[in-house]
Amino acid sequence: MFFERVAVIGVGLIGGSFSLALKEKKLCGHVAGVGRSPANMKLALERGLIDSIEADVAAAVRGADLVMIATPVAQFSPVMKAVETALKPGAIVSDAGSTKRDVVATARAGLGAKIAQFVPAHPIAGAEHSGAAAANAQLFRDRRLVLTPLDENNKQDIETVAALWSALGARVSRMTPEEHDQVFAAVSHLPHLLAYALVNDISKRPNSAQLFSYAAGGFRDFTRVASSHPEMWRDICMANRDDLLHELHLYEKKLKAITQMLETSNAVALEKLFAEARAAREKWLNGDYE
Amino acid sequence: MFFERVAVIGVGLIGGSFSLALKEKKLCGHVAGVGRSPANMKLALERGLIDSIEADVAAAVRGADLVMIATPVAQFSPVMKAVETALKPGAIVSDAGSTKRDVVATARAGLGAKIAQFVPAHPIAGAEHSGAAAANAQLFRDRRLVLTPLDENNKQDIETVAALWSALGARVSRMTPEEHDQVFAAVSHLPHLLAYALVNDISKRPNSAQLFSYAAGGFRDFTRVASSHPEMWRDICMANRDDLLHELHLYEKKLKAITQMLETSNAVALEKLFAEARAAREKWLNGDYE
Repeated sequence: MFFERVAVIGVGLIGGSFSLALKEKKLCGHVAGVGRSPANMKLALERGLIDSIEADVAAAVRGADLVMIATPVAQFSPVMKAVETALKPGAIVSDAGSTKRDVVATARAGLGAKIAQFVPAHPIAGAEHSGAAAANAQLFRDRRLVLTPLDENNKQDIETVAALWSALGARVSRMTPEEHDQVFAAVSHLPHLLAYALVNDISKRPNSAQLFSYAAGGFRDFTRVASSHPEMWRDICMANRDDLLHELHLYEKKLKAITQMLETSNAVALEKLFAEARAAREKWLNGDYE
Repeated sequence: MFFERVAVIGVGLIGGSFSLALKEKKLCGHVAGVGRSPANMKLALERGLIDSIEADVAAAVRGADLVMIATPVAQFSPVMKAVETALKPGAIVSDAGSTKRDVVATARAGLGAKIAQFVPAHPIAGAEHSGAAAANAQLFRDRRLVLTPLDENNKQDIETVAALWSALGARVSRMTPEEHDQVFAAVSHLPHLLAYALVNDISKRPNSAQLFSYAAGGFRDFTRVASSHPEMWRDICMANRDDLLHELHLYEKKLKAITQMLETSNAVALEKLFAEARAAREKWLNGDYE
């Protein structure tokens, strides 16, 4: 497994770390990068994440054996169209988008007859830091990588993408795009929304300075994901709107049940709910669900 | 400032750490401990957190210059009554309860004419670990300590308790019990409830094993407080029921606003909400609200 020329579209935390890890494992030759921010691209080149800065997506993709799309998902539409114009036969296109149903739809529209060359993927490796400055070759080690292959994909391409991510240390598994989006709406997108909601709400209070001044370690951890990239999370929430609305609805039902426990002073039910949650979390931390 | 004899009622994380820190700073002589769990008390004695295990609260309090009540708040009622029977004139009683309005009411009922000797306090130093095993003398260093003094207290006792906690490294400030409970409902009690709610909800799904298996670092931090002690948090939620219900109500309003942004695909409003939250959190992390 060796890629003579790799194109990385969007050289941020994920794209840059992917490129760096490929280089470190000696799995690639030249990496051509393209991105929106000249300062970020300059840094990516200086840090050796990429070997050249290309003027546009087509220039990066031309001659590439592997194309990694790692921009925010809202940019996938023009990117896919540009990839289509320059993609050589036999090359593999993959992505790092945090949602998959919309990405697959966008890819079908943009890649047209070349859709079979696109193997959708999602590395579970977010962090509150972003950009080429935050890229590191160990980012995917022991993290999950979810493939959501298409019916059109040939088996060999799917195996290649799986082997590639395994080589970077990721634990590779497969789902349908629909299943992927439902799972991550529950365990990732909803918690982000809830954390943003709490911090935003507190920041709007007349006594917000006082409130923040007494917030401690529990608050810091609970709200860590509220330091995530607003544009990226706007895109994720919009792309996975229906599943996220469903999760919000379920969560509001749970909050209503808790409200009722408080209103009726049902301490027994409340303690049971807390104890069940704690036990489930301990099981999870113990690796019972790996 | 030196206490010949200290009584610690409840030698868990907070009571045990308080005692250990007092000893380390050479601020006390004999520490008499009392608690519900014989195994925990034995460990507290072995670890040198306390110097003697007493049979009951009155036995611990008899002759003490300083009494620290560090049990879950739901136990305060019988504890206060027992303290009252044995408390010597001039001794100071304080506590580590996470709520203050109910604690003050319970103290008034239990201590009767001795209420002036009670200086209520709340060290902001929770952790998901509990018990004497988790106690450490550094627990309060650079943490906040909120005093909610009573009109009946004499100024000197308030100053003594403040100086004591300062000596243990805490940053001491003062509020009314009402203000205290409102502030911590927002920045502590609500986040705990929200985290418990999410983990509980996910644990009840038919596909909970799959969901947990894809939960990553963001989920881990968001839910860390859901590993907190269920009984302790049941007590806190019940004791601060009204303020917590108010916070839940505000939070549900915020979730409704977000739901509407999603339903109407208002990406601009959603990104603004996220960006404001992130900016507020960064300001907080930078220490702008200290």
